[in-house]
Amino acid sequence: DLKSRFAEAGIGLSIPDGQDAVAPEELLQAMRLTLDYSTSTGHPLFFNQLYGGPEPAGIAGEWLAVAANTNCHTFEVAPVFTLVETEVLAKLARLIGGPYSQDHDGLFVPGGSIANIYGMHLARNRADPAFKQRGAQGGPRLVAFTSEQAHYSYRKAVALTGLGTDNLISVACDADGAMSPASLQEAIKAAEQEGKTPFFVGATAGTTVTGAFDPLEPLSKICREHNVWLHVDGAWGGAALLSRKLRHLMAGCERADSMCWNPHKLLGMPLQCSVFLTQHADILRRTNAGGAAYLFQPDKLHAEYDLGDKTIQCGRRPDAFKLWLAWKAYGDAGFERWVDRADELAQACEIRIKESGGALQLVQRRAPFNVCFWWVPAQLRPYTPEQATPAAKDLLSKVAPAIKELMQQKGDAMIGFQPLGSAPNFFRIVFAGAKLLQDCDLDALLQRINAYGQQLFPAQQ
Amino acid sequence: DLKSRFAEAGIGLSIPDGQDAVAPEELLQAMRLTLDYSTSTGHPLFFNQLYGGPEPAGIAGEWLAVAANTNCHTFEVAPVFTLVETEVLAKLARLIGGPYSQDHDGLFVPGGSIANIYGMHLARNRADPAFKQRGAQGGPRLVAFTSEQAHYSYRKAVALTGLGTDNLISVACDADGAMSPASLQEAIKAAEQEGKTPFFVGATAGTTVTGAFDPLEPLSKICREHNVWLHVDGAWGGAALLSRKLRHLMAGCERADSMCWNPHKLLGMPLQCSVFLTQHADILRRTNAGGAAYLFQPDKLHAEYDLGDKTIQCGRRPDAFKLWLAWKAYGDAGFERWVDRADELAQACEIRIKESGGALQLVQRRAPFNVCFWWVPAQLRPYTPEQATPAAKDLLSKVAPAIKELMQQKGDAMIGFQPLGSAPNFFRIVFAGAKLLQDCDLDALLQRINAYGQQLFPAQQ
Ligand SMILES: Cc1ncc(COP(=O)(O)O)c(C=O)c1O
Ligand SMILES: Cc1ncc(COP(=O)(O)O)c(C=O)c1O
Repeated sequence: DLKSRFAEAGIGLSIPDGQDAVAPEELLQAMRLTLDYSTSTGHPLFFNQLYGGPEPAGIAGEWLAVAANTNCHTFEVAPVFTLVETEVLAKLARLIGGPYSQDHDGLFVPGGSIANIYGMHLARNRADPAFKQRGAQGGPRLVAFTSEQAHYSYRKAVALTGLGTDNLISVACDADGAMSPASLQEAIKAAEQEGKTPFFVGATAGTTVTGAFDPLEPLSKICREHNVWLHVDGAWGGAALLSRKLRHLMAGCERADSMCWNPHKLLGMPLQCSVFLTQHADILRRTNAGGAAYLFQPDKLHAEYDLGDKTIQCGRRPDAFKLWLAWKAYGDAGFERWVDRADELAQACEIRIKESGGALQLVQRRAPFNVCFWWVPAQLRPYTPEQATPAAKDLLSKVAPAIKELMQQKGDAMIGFQPLGSAPNFFRIVFAGAKLLQDCDLDALLQRINAYGQQLFPAQQ
Repeated sequence: DLKSRFAEAGIGLSIPDGQDAVAPEELLQAMRLTLDYSTSTGHPLFFNQLYGGPEPAGIAGEWLAVAANTNCHTFEVAPVFTLVETEVLAKLARLIGGPYSQDHDGLFVPGGSIANIYGMHLARNRADPAFKQRGAQGGPRLVAFTSEQAHYSYRKAVALTGLGTDNLISVACDADGAMSPASLQEAIKAAEQEGKTPFFVGATAGTTVTGAFDPLEPLSKICREHNVWLHVDGAWGGAALLSRKLRHLMAGCERADSMCWNPHKLLGMPLQCSVFLTQHADILRRTNAGGAAYLFQPDKLHAEYDLGDKTIQCGRRPDAFKLWLAWKAYGDAGFERWVDRADELAQACEIRIKESGGALQLVQRRAPFNVCFWWVPAQLRPYTPEQATPAAKDLLSKVAPAIKELMQQKGDAMIGFQPLGSAPNFFRIVFAGAKLLQDCDLDALLQRINAYGQQLFPAQQ
């Protein structure tokens, strides 16, 4: 195991009492081992997560920021990083368009989950202006809505912010996994009839598992009718904004009150790089200000540029810088090409699955960046989900874990799997770090899945 | 200004519509400019913040982690980083001692502010087990306590988590800025008499401004009597645990329910490196689990090592790695020397201030790592705070900003200032990144402050 490998190399993983300083050569050896035994997220066939190998310009930007070691709370300690953050946010606001090109507010935050918390928190304070001071008790009975396919960070958000998971209402999705506007309309009305106050809809642009885009135009209309804050979790799919071909998927996003996007996912920035944006100018400071006198002295130089009091943090890394540098390095066209290439690869994958004669089967329509499929053992073909027996489902649920384990052991590839609703474990290929992948790589991958499947689940005679 | 400097160099700070890809030489030029115009936090006379220049082994660890670009949510994508995090937490738990050496739970989190949120959130869920599901409404009327000198992140925490700033009770401090146990005792009793439920005391080990250590032994006794969760914000002063000479300041810390510490402050790790620890085993997962099926599949390899469901995030950077590498590089003794050196320098500074004949004056007793002082214009000497006229205070409040501005413009040094209570703006020197500073550097710095003070506020004849 890992512990003994490190110990054999003379660097124990544990830090014993009285740890001695070790020599530089041993440190280098420890670093080498760390890289050797780390999962190669930069492998072209790493499809396990919504991120992959980082882009060189992103690494360069991050390395510089690490060495400069400063902090985007005040302009005086981070003048360039502060301006860069402001410029990147302005660029993204222009990309979104609509009211965002006039006015916006935003921040880079440590992850999409925390960006979703920001959205819900701003919404809460708008719906209940006394919230910050009074707290939740004694306020209106607020309820939030997300789709049943939304990211689990919304659940964490309601648990953290004292709304409670009981007050997060799950809205039904269509067959592709997109939130159904009719179901949202109904759910909001039902809540209102129960005397509750709907205040927040958390839509998703690019769901984590199936890659579906909630229909933002109709959702924004419903939200406006009911005076509800619309937040768009575009952590994954927000990248579609960069592509002329795909940005229609985000249509209506400019009407959302707030949104998030993770350039550390499809854009290959080193973790973490997450943006929160809202169309409401100056709302972050009004909501989050703590006004610490030791940090935000009005009588120091350039205090007006300080970003720090907008946040729920104090220290904050300059995560905008790597994206800024990469944007300069690859340009708008470069980013667009990456996004389009992810979609092309997903399409190529879809075609191969459809042409596999039943060995591979789509779980549902493929999304721009996600393809969900089963490898189906011969005795279950053709696999028809609606007619599958419990025994068939049980067998199918064992396939993806077993093939994944074998691929991991051989170091071939890494593809995530999960069950969803009534669908037993299936593979999910996500095209995050796969820009340089060729179609022939896809062929090889799918052939290998097929070969391993046949080996692990041989056709019964 | 900065914008025109970048524009002249051919790299605008803004990202125009249709940004072209720029050539590598221009990118390098942009990186050079960024470093040139960034504040030199690694300058030996950067005393502005509780962090400074990062340590080489910390940078190396962080650079490696950036390039490996993975994510401490699951073991399968971050096996080494996951084990390293576990080992570093175990080391810290042993350093704290007491119940922590038996059992503990913990995480690296994005900043001390968020670590304080974790502490309050766990306490809330212990005091009100239905909280996660029901939310704050309908639960007990909880109140939290911190000292008037506590970090402003506690205020942000109550605003975010729906407790409300009205339910954060400010406890009086002694003359050094440490929380008074008698005042806490009283405040808790008063709250109980009003029918409120005290659930959380946020103590501070090393306050941000004056560096005071709250007396943890007596505070923990009071907390136990009233069944209140004690969290210790050791973001700054937690480093005292590493020094045999100074760890008495943390006595009682092992009785705290939870604590945080920022190795990115006194230990010179690149931002961010923040630890949250609690003595209660497995409480993080129980409180925060969202149980996402796409990530924490029980049927994949090594699922039992996954750390991700303990957090309020999803993706999380491997911030433990740099600290692990640095610990190997410098050893227990190296870290201890740094901490002790900070204390020696503060003492050297104190002596010089006391021997300055009234030109420099301590605002209060110097703390191990903080020295708060005024440069006093000749006409105000000897400065006696209790007898100072409003006009004298008004003049004094202008001194530190003016000297700081001049030092910044000359690039000499950077020292923070702030007012506190009735004390007008004073300098705060914090020994975070100053390990290699010599006593003669201190002499030079204090002489320069004196010279600038005389220049800006000449003695009136
Ligand atoms: C749709 C969606 N939202 C939010 C997140 C959370 O982002 P982060 O891991 O940066 O917290 C994810 C992560 O996979 C996601 O897929
Ligand atoms: C005592 C104390 N607690 C918490 C924090 C916040 O830490 P962070 O900036 O990592 O959020 C600070 C920051 O200076 C601090 O001084």
